[in-house]
Amino acid sequence: MPFEITKDYIQKIQQLIAEDKEDTLLEMLAEVHYADIAEIIEEIEYSEAIYIIKLLESDVTSEIIAELDEDTRENILKGLSSKEIAEEISELDTDDAADIISELSDKQIKEVISHIEDEEHAKDIIELLRYDEDTAGGLMAKELVKVNENWNVLTCVKEMRAQAEEVTRVHSIYVVDDNDILKGRLSLKDLLTTSTKTAIKDVFIKKVDSVNVNDDAEDVAKIMQKYDLEAIPVVDELGRLVGRITIDDIVDVIKEEAEKDYQMAAGISQDVEADDTIWELTKARLPWLILALFGGFVSVSILGGFQEAMNKYPVLFFFTPLIAAMAGNVGVQSSAIIVQGLANDSLRGSYFKRLLKEVSQSLLNGFVLAAILMSAGMFFLGFELKVGITVAISLISVIIIASIIGTFIPIILDKRGIDPALATGPFITTSNDILGILIYFSIAKLILGF
Amino acid sequence: MPFEITKDYIQKIQQLIAEDKEDTLLEMLAEVHYADIAEIIEEIEYSEAIYIIKLLESDVTSEIIAELDEDTRENILKGLSSKEIAEEISELDTDDAADIISELSDKQIKEVISHIEDEEHAKDIIELLRYDEDTAGGLMAKELVKVNENWNVLTCVKEMRAQAEEVTRVHSIYVVDDNDILKGRLSLKDLLTTSTKTAIKDVFIKKVDSVNVNDDAEDVAKIMQKYDLEAIPVVDELGRLVGRITIDDIVDVIKEEAEKDYQMAAGISQDVEADDTIWELTKARLPWLILALFGGFVSVSILGGFQEAMNKYPVLFFFTPLIAAMAGNVGVQSSAIIVQGLANDSLRGSYFKRLLKEVSQSLLNGFVLAAILMSAGMFFLGFELKVGITVAISLISVIIIASIIGTFIPIILDKRGIDPALATGPFITTSNDILGILIYFSIAKLILGF
Repeated sequence: MPFEITKDYIQKIQQLIAEDKEDTLLEMLAEVHYADIAEIIEEIEYSEAIYIIKLLESDVTSEIIAELDEDTRENILKGLSSKEIAEEISELDTDDAADIISELSDKQIKEVISHIEDEEHAKDIIELLRYDEDTAGGLMAKELVKVNENWNVLTCVKEMRAQAEEVTRVHSIYVVDDNDILKGRLSLKDLLTTSTKTAIKDVFIKKVDSVNVNDDAEDVAKIMQKYDLEAIPVVDELGRLVGRITIDDIVDVIKEEAEKDYQMAAGISQDVEADDTIWELTKARLPWLILALFGGFVSVSILGGFQEAMNKYPVLFFFTPLIAAMAGNVGVQSSAIIVQGLANDSLRGSYFKRLLKEVSQSLLNGFVLAAILMSAGMFFLGFELKVGITVAISLISVIIIASIIGTFIPIILDKRGIDPALATGPFITTSNDILGILIYFSIAKLILGF
Repeated sequence: MPFEITKDYIQKIQQLIAEDKEDTLLEMLAEVHYADIAEIIEEIEYSEAIYIIKLLESDVTSEIIAELDEDTRENILKGLSSKEIAEEISELDTDDAADIISELSDKQIKEVISHIEDEEHAKDIIELLRYDEDTAGGLMAKELVKVNENWNVLTCVKEMRAQAEEVTRVHSIYVVDDNDILKGRLSLKDLLTTSTKTAIKDVFIKKVDSVNVNDDAEDVAKIMQKYDLEAIPVVDELGRLVGRITIDDIVDVIKEEAEKDYQMAAGISQDVEADDTIWELTKARLPWLILALFGGFVSVSILGGFQEAMNKYPVLFFFTPLIAAMAGNVGVQSSAIIVQGLANDSLRGSYFKRLLKEVSQSLLNGFVLAAILMSAGMFFLGFELKVGITVAISLISVIIIASIIGTFIPIILDKRGIDPALATGPFITTSNDILGILIYFSIAKLILGF
């Protein structure tokens, strides 16, 4: 039963802001989840947004600010003083705080940090700022519940109660030794069902998955998914417990990764959204279009080289867009399947088997399509048998070659440590367009002998 | 620190199976996570896989079976009796159990269910089989911890300990009334920090998000992401608590959704993987290729209609693949951005604003590309100024039209309740190819007057 933000609702809020009715607004918004208020903020004017941020308490506004789109957040933060930002930051978990603060200038970061009253919190945030955002360190939060293996359950529960106050969600209780080295974990469930007199040493689970602060965010996502983990502890080079990553942070990584592959396949070179500026959108789109344009030049030259065929077989030129389109479509299909297989680590079997599979599939598709082409072409478009055979053979050849290229270019890129998704979309379409036209006219020359 | 499955390791296992060394195998595999054993099973022969499944205890093999790819699982289950399957199923949470059992025939389902000893478990699984897999009911598990609002904390803790034995992960404690109607929740953290003498009525949080059993799985995913929930209770039409969905189930929904959009953009009409059979892959790919082929026929006819231009301006025909490719690429880019925006509910602003934005972006891209085309075309390819102007104007027009189509077709489909991702890929490329060629030759006729 999600809350529905209607136009009427937003207008009502805008009206209350215009009339400066603080109490009514406070009463209305008290019922609304911060994620919904964040959506409302995205819809209203800047001055209205600032009004609401300044009106509400910082325990709510901090969460709202963490939810906002980056662009909106940047604007809102510009409207707040360093002290005000520090107040928001103080309410957030260290990972969210570090994410927000990292968007500020170095000078402002220092100012904001100096205004954070809780020194421990400030120190943790500064530590997190050190890590690259695409690593485990960039994802983790410092908030976690840890106990010393040398404690007994009684001390443990007391300590945990204190620590749990700081932690939004308790997933696991991590067990460390005197040097803070991660030794294992204690599940909450075990704690619920174990007698309070037991010693930690005797009760904790000695096996615990962990990742290193420098591990790649995507690898962390894969591990957490594979082993069905809701949280994973992060250790430094010495094995000391430095943070933990929860599944909700991983959801974003997984989503972004899948969306990035899709955008690359569509010829968009960086993470953009429909509501980014025209300039950002153009920057993401133009490079691929220029690549496609140069590919187009190559096909213009190839076709120019076969100009002498125009007098005898003009119909050949009518089929070039069809052949090029089929080559492009087949290539994109093949590459998409492989890129997803690589992303999910689900490709099995030898290269030779894969080649065989692509070729047999292409033959199957190719013969069906060629049969349709032959019958439709000869009965409805009415061209010569020789031309029909030429186009049909070209179609089958082009489909086979395009699918082999679509399959193996991503595999080769992946082997060399390059993101295979790069090879999908415009790159595959353009190269297959060119190759398709070249194969088509070469076969035509061979059969028709112009 | 994930476990690395090497070729050597798999060979060693295969050798041990060949030599029938049960004890050594058991010892080796005792150290390995079930998710890793599932990966090993995918790599080895069928008879070897069955050997391992029969060797290990059902508390491990049940988890392995739940992790397997659908195809492998189907095969493995064929090698087990209904009684053996029932043993596996009995170890699993109800949601995983229902997922596996739903793949069997109706007759076998009955047999398997009849062999499950825990009647409550069997009843729960049968209930879950009723729901469509794309709904909240299809995602939820029956395992949850619930307490009655009329209990006191002492009864509550006692009951919870018993219930917690059944539940793998305790997220929230749900509070119901005497009629099982969901009233609110109790957080584990609160329980850790609250005195044991408090009455539940006085301590539980009266606000709790929930979804209906019939809600769409994707909507559940959106709600859980938006409100940062790790678990959400599921209620029936009367508001009675019937199950709960956890974030790890949602991770799969999110991933599948993003992958589906990508596959659609690549012209693959159903969820396939690289290791599916040739027949399944062809079924997923051929329909789009046939669509593209018919689109190709249309472009053949259009070009045929402009045959008279061939004598005077053969170079025009050399440019058709370039124009078609640019139209296709631009259309795919625009539609991908909109489809992702729709999927994330992040599109804001009026249609008119969006139109304006697309047109200004296209003009920007179009002018840059036309300038490159003019200079490259005239200096290197050496064609007449009139032809250059014709191609350049066509290019800009085609880019504008293609981006408008790419933007608004997904929006219109979405308005009508059709998955907008359908409009990306081959559909957009094909229609933009055709339209591009038509616009190009119409403009050429207007300027060059052939």
